[in-house]
Formats: sequence, C-alpha cells, structure tokens
Amino acid sequence: MSSFGTLFRISTFGESHGKGVGVIVDGCPPCLKLSEADIQVQLDRRRPGQSHLTTAVSIVVHLTTVIHNSQRSEADRVTIQSGTENGVTLGTPISCFVPNQDQRPGDYKEMNAVPRPSHADYTYQEKYLVAARSGGGRASARETIGRVAAGAIAEKWLKEQYNTEIVAFVSAIGEVSTKGVDINTITRDEVDKSLVRCPDKEAVVEMQKVIESAKADEDSIGGVITCVIRNVPTGLGEPCFDKLEAKLAHAMLSIPATKGFEVGSGFEGAKMRGSAHNDMFFRRTDGKLGTHTNFSGGIQGGISNGEHIFFRVAFKPAATIGRDQETVDFSGKPATLAAKGRHDPCVTPRAIPIVETMAALVLADAALIQMARKTAGLYLQQKE
Amino acid sequence: MSSFGTLFRISTFGESHGKGVGVIVDGCPPCLKLSEADIQVQLDRRRPGQSHLTTAVSIVVHLTTVIHNSQRSEADRVTIQSGTENGVTLGTPISCFVPNQDQRPGDYKEMNAVPRPSHADYTYQEKYLVAARSGGGRASARETIGRVAAGAIAEKWLKEQYNTEIVAFVSAIGEVSTKGVDINTITRDEVDKSLVRCPDKEAVVEMQKVIESAKADEDSIGGVITCVIRNVPTGLGEPCFDKLEAKLAHAMLSIPATKGFEVGSGFEGAKMRGSAHNDMFFRRTDGKLGTHTNFSGGIQGGISNGEHIFFRVAFKPAATIGRDQETVDFSGKPATLAAKGRHDPCVTPRAIPIVETMAALVLADAALIQMARKTAGLYLQQKE
Amino acid sequence: MSSFGTLFRISTFGESHGKGVGVIVDGCPPCLKLSEADIQVQLDRRRPGQSHLTTAVSIVVHLTTVIHNSQRSEADRVTIQSGTENGVTLGTPISCFVPNQDQRPGDYKEMNAVPRPSHADYTYQEKYLVAARSGGGRASARETIGRVAAGAIAEKWLKEQYNTEIVAFVSAIGEVSTKGVDINTITRDEVDKSLVRCPDKEAVVEMQKVIESAKADEDSIGGVITCVIRNVPTGLGEPCFDKLEAKLAHAMLSIPATKGFEVGSGFEGAKMRGSAHNDMFFRRTDGKLGTHTNFSGGIQGGISNGEHIFFRVAFKPAATIGRDQETVDFSGKPATLAAKGRHDPCVTPRAIPIVETMAALVLADAALIQMARKTAGLYLQQKE
Amino acid sequence: MSSFGTLFRISTFGESHGKGVGVIVDGCPPCLKLSEADIQVQLDRRRPGQSHLTTAVSIVVHLTTVIHNSQRSEADRVTIQSGTENGVTLGTPISCFVPNQDQRPGDYKEMNAVPRPSHADYTYQEKYLVAARSGGGRASARETIGRVAAGAIAEKWLKEQYNTEIVAFVSAIGEVSTKGVDINTITRDEVDKSLVRCPDKEAVVEMQKVIESAKADEDSIGGVITCVIRNVPTGLGEPCFDKLEAKLAHAMLSIPATKGFEVGSGFEGAKMRGSAHNDMFFRRTDGKLGTHTNFSGGIQGGISNGEHIFFRVAFKPAATIGRDQETVDFSGKPATLAAKGRHDPCVTPRAIPIVETMAALVLADAALIQMARKTAGLYLQQKE
Repeated sequence: MSSFGTLFRISTFGESHGKGVGVIVDGCPPCLKLSEADIQVQLDRRRPGQSHLTTAVSIVVHLTTVIHNSQRSEADRVTIQSGTENGVTLGTPISCFVPNQDQRPGDYKEMNAVPRPSHADYTYQEKYLVAARSGGGRASARETIGRVAAGAIAEKWLKEQYNTEIVAFVSAIGEVSTKGVDINTITRDEVDKSLVRCPDKEAVVEMQKVIESAKADEDSIGGVITCVIRNVPTGLGEPCFDKLEAKLAHAMLSIPATKGFEVGSGFEGAKMRGSAHNDMFFRRTDGKLGTHTNFSGGIQGGISNGEHIFFRVAFKPAATIGRDQETVDFSGKPATLAAKGRHDPCVTPRAIPIVETMAALVLADAALIQMARKTAGLYLQQKE
Repeated sequence: MSSFGTLFRISTFGESHGKGVGVIVDGCPPCLKLSEADIQVQLDRRRPGQSHLTTAVSIVVHLTTVIHNSQRSEADRVTIQSGTENGVTLGTPISCFVPNQDQRPGDYKEMNAVPRPSHADYTYQEKYLVAARSGGGRASARETIGRVAAGAIAEKWLKEQYNTEIVAFVSAIGEVSTKGVDINTITRDEVDKSLVRCPDKEAVVEMQKVIESAKADEDSIGGVITCVIRNVPTGLGEPCFDKLEAKLAHAMLSIPATKGFEVGSGFEGAKMRGSAHNDMFFRRTDGKLGTHTNFSGGIQGGISNGEHIFFRVAFKPAATIGRDQETVDFSGKPATLAAKGRHDPCVTPRAIPIVETMAALVLADAALIQMARKTAGLYLQQKE
Repeated sequence: MSSFGTLFRISTFGESHGKGVGVIVDGCPPCLKLSEADIQVQLDRRRPGQSHLTTAVSIVVHLTTVIHNSQRSEADRVTIQSGTENGVTLGTPISCFVPNQDQRPGDYKEMNAVPRPSHADYTYQEKYLVAARSGGGRASARETIGRVAAGAIAEKWLKEQYNTEIVAFVSAIGEVSTKGVDINTITRDEVDKSLVRCPDKEAVVEMQKVIESAKADEDSIGGVITCVIRNVPTGLGEPCFDKLEAKLAHAMLSIPATKGFEVGSGFEGAKMRGSAHNDMFFRRTDGKLGTHTNFSGGIQGGISNGEHIFFRVAFKPAATIGRDQETVDFSGKPATLAAKGRHDPCVTPRAIPIVETMAALVLADAALIQMARKTAGLYLQQKE
Repeated sequence: MSSFGTLFRISTFGESHGKGVGVIVDGCPPCLKLSEADIQVQLDRRRPGQSHLTTAVSIVVHLTTVIHNSQRSEADRVTIQSGTENGVTLGTPISCFVPNQDQRPGDYKEMNAVPRPSHADYTYQEKYLVAARSGGGRASARETIGRVAAGAIAEKWLKEQYNTEIVAFVSAIGEVSTKGVDINTITRDEVDKSLVRCPDKEAVVEMQKVIESAKADEDSIGGVITCVIRNVPTGLGEPCFDKLEAKLAHAMLSIPATKGFEVGSGFEGAKMRGSAHNDMFFRRTDGKLGTHTNFSGGIQGGISNGEHIFFRVAFKPAATIGRDQETVDFSGKPATLAAKGRHDPCVTPRAIPIVETMAALVLADAALIQMARKTAGLYLQQKE
C-alpha cells in the first residue's frame, strides 16, 4: 500500500504524468510552526537545475545538464491544502500537493509495447493486469515527491523537539568512494557544495569523471549514500519486528533503485570478532552512558542508545539509458529499445533528500510511540 | 510492536527465562494440512545439539559443543493450541507455544548491574525504565522461536500453493566466503550436511577453523547468510512503501544481530553501469517473460517478476563473549564484565531457519494480498 | 486517525474553510471503469439545493431553502488526480479533490471565544491545544465529502463484482416514523422522490411539518436512517473483533452527529425470546441455504449469510441552531451564543449518501479480504 | 482478524473445545503492578457458578443453575506467561492463557450436520469452507475469555493513571427495564448484589421471573447492558474515523450476540430538538468546562470532554435453546434440531465484564495515542 507509519502516518498518491503528486500527513503533532517554505527546501534539493553554487562553473553547468536535464521545467511547487492555520499545525491531516507541469507522454510512446529492462513495466502489468502507459506511472521517481514533502515536516518536528539533525551524502559513485568524511560534524551546507553532494573534495572530482564518462556512453552509473542522524533520544524503536534498524531498512529499500542497506558496522561487521565489535560503555559528562566506539550504529537490540545513528544505502544504476538494448516486447518478440526521453546518468545525488526525509519519517513515528510509553511509564514509576 | 504482517499476521511473546515463548498466526488460509511436525522441523534446525550428521565427526562433535552448548537441554517442543482440527487449519488463529525448560537466571546475575556492551540491557532500561534482569528478556535469541514456528506454517502454505522453495545457507564466516554455490539448485539437505550450514565444502573447512579459533579465544565471530526463494509467482509486493524488497529488508533487520541486507546485485550493483546491470527480457518456453541475467534479484519496481529472489544478510559477532570486557555499570562506575553463562562463538549457522521463515512470512502476506487484487482484477477484465 | 480500511483503504483530509477537502483511495482493484461522474452522483446527493424534483413544488422550494441554504453556492465538483488512465483504474492510489469555493470565516467569528454547545470546539481545543477557528475545521460536515467520494468508488466496484445494491432512506424525523417500507425492493429513485428522502408518502408529509416547525423556531430536529444492502456474498466479515456488524457500527458512529446503531432486530431483539428470534434455514432454489426470517440482519457470528443486511442509524439534532444559547466562553465566563452563519434544521436527509457510501467502504474491504482467503482455501480444498 | 487496538493492542486465539484460549497484550505501559489476581477477578465475574451472594438463596441457587450450568466445572484459571517480572509489567508482550478443562465435543454431535439457526455454523462454513465441528469453535462464548483478560489489564492501568472507573449493569431483560439507576455513583459491588447484575431492586425481581419463565419453556431471552465510564481525561478519540464512540461501537458490536449500540441520548436523541439536546457549558470548580446536561454521553466531535461516558448495548436472546427447531441440514434437507448440550436462558448478566473490559481496551488505546500527541503539543506550545 502507499501508507507508511503508525502515529506519524503518511499516504502518498500520484503518477508521473497525471495531474499531480501529493501526500497526506496524519498525526503530525499540533502547535508546530509550519509553512510551505519548510517543505519546499527539501523538494528543491530533490529537484534539479536550481543550483546557485559558484564552484567549478563549467563543470557545474555541464553536470547540471547531465544529471538533471529531465525535469528542468518542473518547478515542483508545493501547496499545503489542509491541517494548518495561521502557520501552525492543527493536529489534523496535512495535505500537500505538487502539480505535474511537464507532461510529455509522447516521449515514452515507443516503450509502450516493450517493457523496459529492470524497470517496473512488466511487473506492474503482471500485478495489475493494466499499467500506466507513460513515464512509469507510479514507479516513476516523481512518486518520491510525496515522501520528501512529508519527511520535511517530520524533520521540522524532530528538530524542534529534540534538535535532531539528519545529514546524508554521496559516499560512493561507481568504484569511487569517500575517505574520512566526519559524520560527527558534516552539514547539509557542506554536502551541497558539490553537485554530486559529496563532501570529500578529492573523491568528488573522480566521481564527476565517472558520471561524465557514463553520460558520454549514453549509460548510467550506481552509487552509495551514507546518512547520519545526530541528537537521537534514547529508547526509540520497538523490540522484535519493529526494531529501529528494521524500520529504517524498510524505509530505505522502499526508495526506488535501492539494492542494499547496512547500519553501523554493516557487512564489514560480519567479518569482525565480538571483542573488537562490542561498544564499551563509559559515563558521559551529562551522567548518561555513552559508548567509546559505535559499531552498533546508535541502535542496540532495536532501540536507540543515544549515539549517532548512521547507515548506508546502495543505489543501482538508473535503468533508463540512451544506449540500444536488445530485449523483447510484451508478446515476447525481439525488440531493440532506445530511450529517447528523460534519463539521468546518475540518480544518487538527487536521492539525498529522499534518504534524509524517509529517515525522518521513521524517527518521528518511533519518537511519538515512545512518547506515549515513556509518559505512562514515568508516571507509574513515580507513583511507587 | 511484536506483530508482523497484514493478512498473514503474526504476534509473538515471551522472554528468555519466563514460562515460555510463542506466537499467534492469524490469517493462515483454511484447509491447509498442518501438524506440529510441520513446525517442529524448523524449530529443530534452529535448536542446537540434535545433529545426526555423519560427516567430519570429530570436528562436528566439537563444533556442536562450541556452537550450541548453551541450549542443549531445551527440547523446544511446540504445541498447537488452537486453529486446527483433524490436522487441517480452520482459518482461525493458530497459537503455538514452546515452554522454557531451562531457566537458569543465576548465570546472568553478575550482569544485572552492568549493561552488557552491544547488547540490549541499556536500551531496554532507557525505553521501559525497567528491564528483565535475566537472560536478555525479550532481546534473547529465544524470542525467535515464535517467528520460526509461524514462518514454518507460512512455508508449508507457500509450498502447497506455489511449490515455493526457500533455501538459506551460510555464505561467509569472518573473512571466509563461499564461491560458486548454485542458488538455482541448492537444497536444505545440502546445506545441512555441514554444521556450519555452508554447502561449499572448501569454504566450510576454513569457516570451522575461524569459529574454533574464536572459541579458543573466548570470543565470537560474525557471518553472512544468503537466501534464495524459487518458484515465486509474479505480482507480489506493493508499489511505494511496501515493496517486496522493503518488506524483506524489514523482516531481516528485525532478526537479532543483523547489520545489513542486500538484494540481487546489492552493494556491488552500486558500482555497475546500467547497460551491464539491466536484465534483458526473453520469452520463456511457457510463454511468459524471463530475464537473461538477474541483477534485480527477482524484484522490479518492488514487485516480483517470477525470477528467483535472492538476498544476503549480515550478522555481527555475538555480543556475549567469555573474555573480560572493560565497561561501566548502570551508574557509570567502571566494571569488568566476564560472561560465565551461555554464549555461542558464532550464531550465524543457527540463524538459517530464522532467515528462511521470516522470508516465508513476507511472501505469504504479499501473496494473500495479491490474491485479492488479482481475483478482482481478472473478473473485471473478463467482464469487458 | 483519518484512515479507514485494510485492503480497500481510504485517507481523508481537509478543514471546512481551508483550500479544499479530499481523499486517497488505496487498494481499489485495477481494471474498474471509473470516471468523475461515478463519484459526482453521490456528492450531488450529499450537496443541497440541486433538486429537480417536481413533486410538491412550493414545499420543496421552501424546504430546499430550509435544509440546504448553507451551501447553495458550493458546487463540490470532484477531480480525480491520480490512479486512473483512459477511464480505468490502475490499482494505484486514486486521489480525489474537491476545492472549497465558499469560504466565509467571518460568519463564525462570534463563536471563536465561545465553544459551541454539543459541537467539537471545546474537545478539539482540549485534544490539540489549538483549534481551527472557523467553521468547525475538521469537525465540519465538509469532512464527509472525502468519505462519500471514496465510498462512491467502493459502490461502483461492489456493483460490478457482486451486483450489490445499497439503499438508505430516512425512517424517522423527530417522533414521526415510517411504516411498511419494503427493504427488499426500495430503490434510490424512490427515496429521492421526496426531499426528506423518505419513501413513505404519508410519513413524509408529517416529517416536513416537523422540520418546518423546527426551522420556524430557529431550532433543529434529529432523525433516523435505515439502510439495506442487497446481493451480499456470503463469508464477509472476520470472526472476533472485525465482525461485519462491528465494522458497520464503527463506520456509522464515525459519521458526525450519530448517536446509535442497530442491526437486524436491534434493540427490539433484546426483548425477544430465542425461539422467536432464531432465523430458521431453508433450501433456496439456487441450492444455497436461506433463512425464513431475518432478525439476524444478514450477519451471523460476524459473517454475512447472504440475506439482506439492514441497519438503523440515529442522528441527533444539529448542534448549530439560530436560537440564543446561554453558555460560557473558553475562560468560563457566561456568554449568550446566537449562530448567525449556516445551519440546517435537519441534517438527516443529507446524510443518506454518507451512510450508503460508508457501508460500501466496509463491504468492499471485507470482500477483498475474503477474496484472498477463499481463493486460497478453494485451491487447497481442491488439491485433496 | 483477531487483533484490536493500535498502541494498546491485543490478539486473541482459541476455540471452545481445543487446548485453551488466550491473548497477547502488546503495548501495555511498563512499570504497572500486575498479577494474575488482577485479571482473575474479571474472569471470575464472567465465569458462572461462583456466587457467594446471600440474598434470595432459593432463587439464587436456582438461577445460578439456570444461567450457568454449562460451565460450572471450568475454573478458567489464568496464567501470565510473559511480560512481567517481580509483579511489574516490563513493557513487552503479556501473554495470558486459560486451559479448556471441560471438553465435551459429544454434546454437539447432533449439530454437526445441521447448522444451528442464528448461530455461526453456516457462515463459518461459507467463509472458511471448513468449520470446527464442536461447540461453535471460534464463535463460542469462550472466545471472550481472551478479551476479558486483556481488558482487565487495561482497566488496571486506567485506574492507576486516571482513576478511571468503568461500571456496567443489566438495564433490561426482555420487556423489563430499570428505572432511576444513578450512573454517577453506581459501583460494581452494587451490581454484583444480584445474580442478574441489575442494581434496581424492583426490576431485578421481574427480570428473574422473565428468565425463569424462558428457562421453563426451554427458551432464551435477550437483554440490554448500560455502561458508564467515570474520570475520563479530555481529548481521547481521534477525529474522523476513529471517533471514541465509533471505537466503542466497534468494540461492543464485536461481542457475540450484540445487536445494537447507543451512546448518550442514543435513539431517543433522534427525536429531540437541538435546543433541548445541546449540552450547555459551565465553569467547574476546578476551572475546566463542564456541561449541565450530558446528552452527548461524554463525547463531542468524537473526542472525550471529561463528562461521564455512557452507552447501552443490546443483546439478542441466546441462539442455542432446548426447544425443538424446524430447520434444514447443510444439504438443505429438513431437520429438527434439539440442543441437548449447554445452553443459557439469558447470557446478558455474564456479558457485564465483557462490556467493561472491551470499553477499557478502547480507552486505554485512545489514552496512549493522546499521550503522545499531548506531550508533543505541550512541548511545542511552551517553546513559543
């Protein structure tokens, strides 16, 4: 289904070439200052072609084109339709809508009879016996606009309530990886300094080359995003099935084009011994316990321990490429597919706000659930 | 919460040292032949010390001790308390119960004042303001018994309905990885031939050495499990948030000690180009479309495409080790922790049935949901 | 929360004086012919002042004014924003939007400091610490537009799939009740012949007098709606908590201004003996079992038995009246409240499409869930 | 499904003649003192034959037999299997189990081929294509044991947290109704003084006669239960679909044999005018607003206003009666059914604890959800 969350619950809708896309955010706490500007900032980071960066102009311009040419003309301007009055949330459902301005179904005509390899054309047809015949329908990247709008609201609340900071950055493009990015201090401003959204100045040069090379070959390339969440209260996440890392994994693997998720030590942790992997406790200056190391990634037994949460998400190369592809049509007859429409050589940089806002949705929901438990538990404990 | 699934929905309960553990399975289709033996087989694979294998006896016996000494005396015998009559499911909730036979709270006494590093003692205390003081309570590995019992029922149904096969195996222990295991043909029998549950005969020797070495050092070691699901109908999984890989990721990261999940090409896919990664279609002999390669891992746009689904899950080294650990107690005072109770040098082999049954729960739920959509859609389509 | 249903799931949003109201319908089967006209018909029945009826013109015109003057200028024109293509549902979320054309917050200014008696002003303030200051916000009758739009889609599907007919009518206004309306044959056309939406020609005259009298006194009057559902497949409804009558009761009591629900024999049934109340079975000509009487109201043990489902819903008199009311403001200071804005002397006739569409939502959800169970069960049974 | 609630969530299981019945309570706040005795008290009130009352002995003994002979030998002794330690809740799932001691499937043999009129035999068969062949299976009254056990825990928490009192009593048996019972003061002790559980001393005499008369005729008789909830915090209930009265209606209509629900003025309110029905506000001595009258039944706009919540629930006469019934068997062949097994002439008195505990489950869930909203809202409001 197109809903996510329990107490902070969102429902999205919208195909790529219909009237628009949007989301209902149900359960956002009341009394939160909220305007469309709060939401627009992440939609703008998701949307391409709006960079004001001054560094490396020639490359920037070039890369902008490369990465974002597909949607330059769509402003993705959000409207709040309900749930706020006088700039404050009412506690009632907040509906956000973004119209589709740029509808060019013609671009995809050729694909109608031919399911695009590694896209969702074939599986939607199998699932629903019918499929949107233009632009991927619900499987389009535009579906993520609703998530980003909703998650921007979750971020705002987490910031107000806990001063929580969520920062994601590109940590790999193809074979090129970052080194030494400090997740304790990294900021969104630093991330946005490069169009690749990678704060490692040396890596970014190589990454840009990798992307340009893929573009020159009418091809695409995958990448990895690392995300850190700072100032997380302890106690978030439910034991058993709704462990905090399980919900984060669910959220991340629900983003189009993702193939993997790892938290804390991740797959490297599987190679380690317990004596090295265990995070020893110490007493912090505020009296609470902290851990010297953080292989746990801020989560133990499915519950946040107050340390930074960090995780990595793998993105496959975009399925839509300009190169000819030898495949078959829906009837099984051989066909050569050449995408003439929109396509990005690397979608990973644009996924940064999607990763951040999905993480915010998971945390906001877990925080509200824990708020109920803790308020009740504290009262009962103090009665003794 | 301790529930999972929508139409095939389970709820588990039980601490490690209470009266027992169990599960309610709600929504299992009626008319399914089901006896306790169907469930017991996977509980036995999860439970240690019951091997009748004849290969590599001396090492086997040794390793059995190493891995499984902790729970040799617990038979983990399941009772079906409701939901069946005359060996057939009634469609009503199926309750399964496994008593705790071996309650030795004394073993963990020392840990009461000292939260075990990288375990859940501290976070449970932060979450609930109170915590089970023996054996990890709900965070114990015994919590997984309920999942395995429920998932064994899901497996049975999937086998009856679609001939679905789910096979998991250990693909890495520490730095040692398998090579060339054929996921198209691998069977549980082959997996169970070694106690490490790794079907690569060369790798398994090295893996045993790694585990024995960790044991000799009173330490633990992590590992990776690969799982394949064959004979999956097309159309399972919901677009957007409940993509099939998202639910699988959720399920896998909810298993204790997991740190990562990847499906199909996974993190390696992030290094690839689209032209190499895209799975080209061809016409199969049954007339349906198949793909030449399967970097997608059997899922495209969140929906199964009929190819094998496969994924990998990373397990960290067990947190409870015999070696002294320098940490602090709950009040922040320095303390040395030495676990005298049960501990396993490597939990990964025992997690095999947990991975398989959690995968079955995800698929059974998705299959029932799709059954409703498809039945309705087909009827409407044929009316035209 | 503002969501309802499991497989046929809706989420609504919108305050009375914001930008608009709407709904997302998630889980509607694919391949269903659907246009805005299918939805508009029930929105028009909910909306006042559009009658083309020719009977009793002078009274009609009069009563139209009486009942519906509040919203004459709002067209309530629905737009489908997603989920269909070429007039057919895609299986993806269907978003419906109705803009608020007539925003007159000024009308309610006086009420800002004074919580309206028996309205939701005080409780919203207590719940959210903040409240929409005009027109009742989320507690306005306009909230029901989203439900009606969604339910109209559910009705369309039930009609296509099972030929299900849902007809509601006003069976009481104040002390005046209908006699002898035949629920086996009553149609919407017959109901709509009078503006009171009561098919009993004698009762309707008295009902109109009661409403006019209340209007003359700047007062309001309550009423009762009876609803029948014909052509219901057997097997709908879940044992235990989600019995079909429990879901219907939930749906009906969620409609603003409702105070009671009874199914089948209802409260009268509590006075009866079992020998009189029990519905004896007989063999119908189609070979299935039917019952001679239908005190059960078409539901036994929470599950539909194929007989007509019928139930009654009590509506209190509208809380907003023109007469002066002696009450207090939010601070507790005495205040006289006189509503100068919109108010209806009797809301019951306009609630007819709300009752019908909410009933449709309950049935559509139950039908999809049962479709999964039955498809699976039949397959397993036939394997034997 | 057999689950109910969101944050305070229960799942029940168990057929009448299987190994036992039970419930998992997930989400109960931690740090609540809880022992089996807290639960047993309501199970004992639900269970018959344990009365120590001294009034009207000859009638009492007689009536006890009449009403409760069916289950005299079942102790219904509850065991807590998980979720507590040292008499305090851990916040983890609480599992309660009650074994079935008295399994006499033979009693119902005759019914196997003949679906009992107005019972669930036929509909279960239609739904699941298979049905428990003894004692009604899941549709048996024993299914309610799980609810009562879970609700007793909810009651305990509500009492600790808000001093909430929930008292239900029989307000009608057949045509005999109570007069002048004061819902502001009525206690469970007063209710339990008569075996009919009716606190109106005059009515109870007539009620007993009605029940005895039905018994003498091998028949059954229906009744009505009134329930009041005192000390309810304001703000409980969600606007739109999960209004507090909607959830209560859902809960009540999910109890076996119920046919109607009304809150506050109920169906009588439908006859009233707004000027009489509106509850005018006044300032209470504690500074909060109260209402002079309470036709709203403590809920306005779906949200509790701090006044007493009260509602009525209609119970049909028990379907199983000793008298011969002319009906047909599953194949449609005429058959005479005479129940020789257990049957009660009036189930209403035993439903008292079921109504109370189901009400407690609704309130506990709503209270936890509101706790999250309010805690967050207050923090945000105070930040300004």
